[in-house]
Amino acid sequence: MSISIGGMFVPAIKGQGTEEQQKKWLPMAYKFQIIGCYAQTELGHGSNVQGLETTATFDPSTDEFVMHSPTLTSSKWWPGGLGKASTHAVVYARLITEGKDYGIHGFIVQLRSLDDHSPLPGVTLGDIGGKFGSGAYNSMDNGVLRFDHVRIPRDQMLMRLSQVTREGKYVHSDVPKQLLYGTMVYVRQTIVADASKALSRAVCIAVRYSAIRKQFGSQDGGPETQVLNYKTQQSRLFPLLASAYAYRFVGQWLKWLYTDVNQKLEAKDYSTLPEAHACTAGLKSVTTSATADAIEECRKLCGGHGYLNSSGLPELFAVYVPACTYEGDNVVLLLQVARFLMKTVSQVAAGKQPVGTIAYMGNIQHLMQCKSAVNTAEDWLNPAAIKEVFEARALRMAVNCAQNISKAPSQEEGFSELSPDLLEAAVAHVQLIIVTKFIEKLQEDIPGPGVKEQLQKLCSIYALHLLHKHLGDFLSTGCVTARQGALANELLGKLYAQVRPNAVALVDAFDYTDHYLGSVLGRYDGDVYPALYEEAWKDPLNETVVPDGYQEHLRPLLKQQLKLSRL
Amino acid sequence: MSISIGGMFVPAIKGQGTEEQQKKWLPMAYKFQIIGCYAQTELGHGSNVQGLETTATFDPSTDEFVMHSPTLTSSKWWPGGLGKASTHAVVYARLITEGKDYGIHGFIVQLRSLDDHSPLPGVTLGDIGGKFGSGAYNSMDNGVLRFDHVRIPRDQMLMRLSQVTREGKYVHSDVPKQLLYGTMVYVRQTIVADASKALSRAVCIAVRYSAIRKQFGSQDGGPETQVLNYKTQQSRLFPLLASAYAYRFVGQWLKWLYTDVNQKLEAKDYSTLPEAHACTAGLKSVTTSATADAIEECRKLCGGHGYLNSSGLPELFAVYVPACTYEGDNVVLLLQVARFLMKTVSQVAAGKQPVGTIAYMGNIQHLMQCKSAVNTAEDWLNPAAIKEVFEARALRMAVNCAQNISKAPSQEEGFSELSPDLLEAAVAHVQLIIVTKFIEKLQEDIPGPGVKEQLQKLCSIYALHLLHKHLGDFLSTGCVTARQGALANELLGKLYAQVRPNAVALVDAFDYTDHYLGSVLGRYDGDVYPALYEEAWKDPLNETVVPDGYQEHLRPLLKQQLKLSRL
Repeated sequence: MSISIGGMFVPAIKGQGTEEQQKKWLPMAYKFQIIGCYAQTELGHGSNVQGLETTATFDPSTDEFVMHSPTLTSSKWWPGGLGKASTHAVVYARLITEGKDYGIHGFIVQLRSLDDHSPLPGVTLGDIGGKFGSGAYNSMDNGVLRFDHVRIPRDQMLMRLSQVTREGKYVHSDVPKQLLYGTMVYVRQTIVADASKALSRAVCIAVRYSAIRKQFGSQDGGPETQVLNYKTQQSRLFPLLASAYAYRFVGQWLKWLYTDVNQKLEAKDYSTLPEAHACTAGLKSVTTSATADAIEECRKLCGGHGYLNSSGLPELFAVYVPACTYEGDNVVLLLQVARFLMKTVSQVAAGKQPVGTIAYMGNIQHLMQCKSAVNTAEDWLNPAAIKEVFEARALRMAVNCAQNISKAPSQEEGFSELSPDLLEAAVAHVQLIIVTKFIEKLQEDIPGPGVKEQLQKLCSIYALHLLHKHLGDFLSTGCVTARQGALANELLGKLYAQVRPNAVALVDAFDYTDHYLGSVLGRYDGDVYPALYEEAWKDPLNETVVPDGYQEHLRPLLKQQLKLSRL
Repeated sequence: MSISIGGMFVPAIKGQGTEEQQKKWLPMAYKFQIIGCYAQTELGHGSNVQGLETTATFDPSTDEFVMHSPTLTSSKWWPGGLGKASTHAVVYARLITEGKDYGIHGFIVQLRSLDDHSPLPGVTLGDIGGKFGSGAYNSMDNGVLRFDHVRIPRDQMLMRLSQVTREGKYVHSDVPKQLLYGTMVYVRQTIVADASKALSRAVCIAVRYSAIRKQFGSQDGGPETQVLNYKTQQSRLFPLLASAYAYRFVGQWLKWLYTDVNQKLEAKDYSTLPEAHACTAGLKSVTTSATADAIEECRKLCGGHGYLNSSGLPELFAVYVPACTYEGDNVVLLLQVARFLMKTVSQVAAGKQPVGTIAYMGNIQHLMQCKSAVNTAEDWLNPAAIKEVFEARALRMAVNCAQNISKAPSQEEGFSELSPDLLEAAVAHVQLIIVTKFIEKLQEDIPGPGVKEQLQKLCSIYALHLLHKHLGDFLSTGCVTARQGALANELLGKLYAQVRPNAVALVDAFDYTDHYLGSVLGRYDGDVYPALYEEAWKDPLNETVVPDGYQEHLRPLLKQQLKLSRL
């Protein structure tokens, strides 16, 4: 078992440490003189960071903080690299000074001796056990940590945003809290980019294998049909291919957004932060959930062989799926988006003009009453027609929620009662963002002959498969008629047929090496069956022809020499 | 690694062997004097059984069949217990006699010596390698088998349905082929029952843990809210709880159907076979797909801790998910259902009265034009209101498909083009069956005070969550208006609140022991956190406090003693 090292120790010190602290600790971390991890989540608290129970109590008599785990549920649990590798951690704990609880703050704590790696006195460390998959996160020592009154110097509290003085006074610095959002936007932006990477890997394997695998289709002994030619395979697979491209483009745009946010933060302009935050939270949630489902769908699209580890898909799924939970549980994030939407709806009602990805809500007059003018299947090829119905759907769902909430005894009660509907409204908003960014990408120059035409087809597939999947939303909000929905579906079928000849080229374009794909089914040369066969013989069980245990177990069974127990 | 034994060897001989063959082989299999497996699937062919490539060529000069694997893709691949344990197999191969290929037949073939378990001459055997999960099917030696001209006596062909004579003549017996359907109905019936078992296990874990886990909801240091109280948790979890009950009841009914089919087969009445076959194929497909997704959803509903093996959920998923592929790929099965639906639509048009689960299609006059009379949310509590819209939706989707197919140049071309829509029509039909059987169950006496009332709520939740999820179907076929859809959603919210107080009791009612559940999160006593903590320490990584590899790898890194490679 290899041991991996958690990656958030350095960003935490960069974001929340003073310049002095950064100067002291970062070089040691960079040079691996220490190994650090980010210890936030506890056994009893994940999403609700404010509920963490570990305490850091200031003792003015020694100028130290006393780190302590007062309950079992306060045990740090999950941090990557915590159990076995880390010598230090940024530990999040309730800061208590002068008898008052000031809430969660970060502290740099040494956990293990730098001489012999043994845990320091009062520190309990361990691994939290096996996880999903046979590889995946089993090579990461997600750990448990408990403190029994462990003392650290006062200057190991991360003091960029607030400090505790020598006397134990709690004071805020003048650094605005909003600066922390920059890190969050950065991390979530990389998660969206990773979603596209993981999804495109799975799609590449499934498309290539579907071009090799043949089944049925010959009544007279002639060649069978490539499964990629079946409409059922296309209707499941091509929307995922389109999604891989969609997430790639929205990921690129998020990268720009991060730069933009940072520039505005430096200029102390915090006005676009809530929108940027909602947008990245929503995109993280929607792209990771869809990607996890899509990897598993690609596995199923490879039939039985997709269940073999040599297909690469089981481990791709097991290693990917935590993305739905870490860095913000996907449902909790969608509720944050929904809160932002409700706020925007009320601001729009008050005449305020929304900006960025939420700007469309300013067009409320038109979007609340418009009816799609689509009259033929091909009318759905028009990006403006797509954008209009996605905007109208998202806005109307949000406005419906806002109206229903306003009927409740209180805003909070209404929000809670309506939360399943709010999730759907948030998803509608985020899907609109992805569709819009895909459309905008295609307004740019795209090099290579015919490339833009192929991407336009994928863009239409991405949008129309969502329209078909969420047809209930579009019909019930009155943006689209049943007939227009049927036309969209008709066009989808035609687009699948048009994408089919270029499907393999469209996954080859991701430019993954066989080594990186790690899949006998997704081989570039298509030589799948010899590879499957060869891979099987590498299994340790095949080291002997007669299996271990034959003499002890199988032979007595077969020779009827098993003794019955006397019990 | 333990070795498991495939279970279809005996049923194959029972179903396809002559009485004499049964008398000879079954006692040996029952007494484990031999270990048998069912060798059908090949590297190149799964769903398309008629495309299998292994040959069994009759040699009249020696009265033997010559078993041979003519290509790499003809290697038997996947049979459970084949690689290491089995001494014999029922091998499916193309029967060739007098120079003619008579298609796929079963043959009893000895694979390994009964003296020392070594493979017989000409037989190549091995394991096909690691699979999804860390346990799951890794304890089953799914195997590969190749024949190099292996000879077996003629009387090892399974000869109940057809024979090869001493001279090599191929003759059919008078046993009707339809008898084989009985086994298929039996196997798929057990798969539906297993879906309910697997789903109820996952739901039991998720419901119990959701009652223990608390998060947010306290602004002033008071107790936090059980996550089971959140509407978002309820709206994801309670439909799965309802599904577990729904599948249980439809599984019980399928058991009855199997008895009924058998009685009719014995009376040589084959009239209901196509309907029974479509029904079991559809139920196998819909319940296993939904259960696989639901187990993973339950895992996500347990947050980060669901990713730990100690939650029991990762392995439950990995061991369950092949059910979507084995015994008929779920998409292929739905297409069979769709074919049956299209046939029924044309028979109904010709005035024939359909029977069994398809009887509703006889009511075509009413169902094609009816409009739901639902006017208040509570109107949806009426089972007749539910049944009507599910029947209308299923019928209209089938009729739409039939009409669109009729516009195509040929029936086959139309079926292929429309296949994605046909899948949806088939799902609508199968969901109707499940809803109907739930409703019928509740017309029986149900012992225990208040039990029926709870089940009625679950029945409504099961039907209405489907109505909400597939709202596009209901709206676009005009069975339901947008307002009625919104009323259904409103009622769902109320039903969740009503089920909440009994949710834990409703999973306790499955009566699973902690040992069987195998989940620290799903413990009956709710003592989750100490169990999680205790379980972690059993991990082998925790046998030492300083991890193996510290001296060799971590220490040189930390002490900056790593030598740079010269390359």
